[in-house]
Amino acid sequence: MSNLSNFTYDEITVGQQASYSRTVDEQGVKLFAAVSGDVNPVHLDAGFAAGTMFKQRIAHGMFTGGLISAAIAMELPGPGTIYLGQDLSFRAPVFIGDTITVSLTVTDKRDDKKFVTLSTVATNQHGKVVVKGQAQVMAPAEKLDIPRPAMPNVTVD
Amino acid sequence: MSNLSNFTYDEITVGQQASYSRTVDEQGVKLFAAVSGDVNPVHLDAGFAAGTMFKQRIAHGMFTGGLISAAIAMELPGPGTIYLGQDLSFRAPVFIGDTITVSLTVTDKRDDKKFVTLSTVATNQHGKVVVKGQAQVMAPAEKLDIPRPAMPNVTVD
Repeated sequence: MSNLSNFTYDEITVGQQASYSRTVDEQGVKLFAAVSGDVNPVHLDAGFAAGTMFKQRIAHGMFTGGLISAAIAMELPGPGTIYLGQDLSFRAPVFIGDTITVSLTVTDKRDDKKFVTLSTVATNQHGKVVVKGQAQVMAPAEKLDIPRPAMPNVTVD
Repeated sequence: MSNLSNFTYDEITVGQQASYSRTVDEQGVKLFAAVSGDVNPVHLDAGFAAGTMFKQRIAHGMFTGGLISAAIAMELPGPGTIYLGQDLSFRAPVFIGDTITVSLTVTDKRDDKKFVTLSTVATNQHGKVVVKGQAQVMAPAEKLDIPRPAMPNVTVD
């Protein structure tokens, strides 16, 4: 498997982009419920969700927040980044089976503190924006190129 | 087990508070890695983390974002809430074993759209603020008092 590497502050340029995609499946939504404790039936109970404005189960909004944070931590700037802040505007529901693509674009750099601002936009497989926002990070000073830790092995009933 | 109930827009008052606590354990951090895809070694590899500024493994910052979203969805306003936006300022690391308490306070209501603003503050067991921010939600119009769905049964290696 490929190594995990980063972009240092000095390597990063305004306008630089990266993306990160994941499919939100049933297992993922159950895991997010278990990890956060949010067991709302709109996420877990298809019968209940059918009676809501969404007509079907939706993923937790902050699930997409987690994908944005993963995009930053895994892709741009990558390992060694310190996450300082994130704002999130939830624009449209994410349904089970949707493939979410997070697009990151560097919009500003602040040399004195190695702070980087990124626009963070998550879209579904139809190109619809589901979450939009902005991240503030401190970019890594040191180049990292490290073995990628194994994905934890998880099972869900 | 207790039912899951909510506060409707009309029941909510400015100044109303709620809280929600969870301990961030090793299993939770592995689950968050699996659900987000963020397998950075600062979260998963104790040996690697010992060489970082944190000296030990830390939880993903957005894990606490997930606890804030759960506090809103489970406690105030609770089920039926539509999450519109959240800003997050990551102030201090969360370590494995920390107990995080999310404190919510209603700071504003906007009658025309049933929008409610809440301050969202997450502290650790020492009272230190780890994440601070603000949430925008559309509060439920209808009272809900529903059976609490079972927590998904999850195992992690």
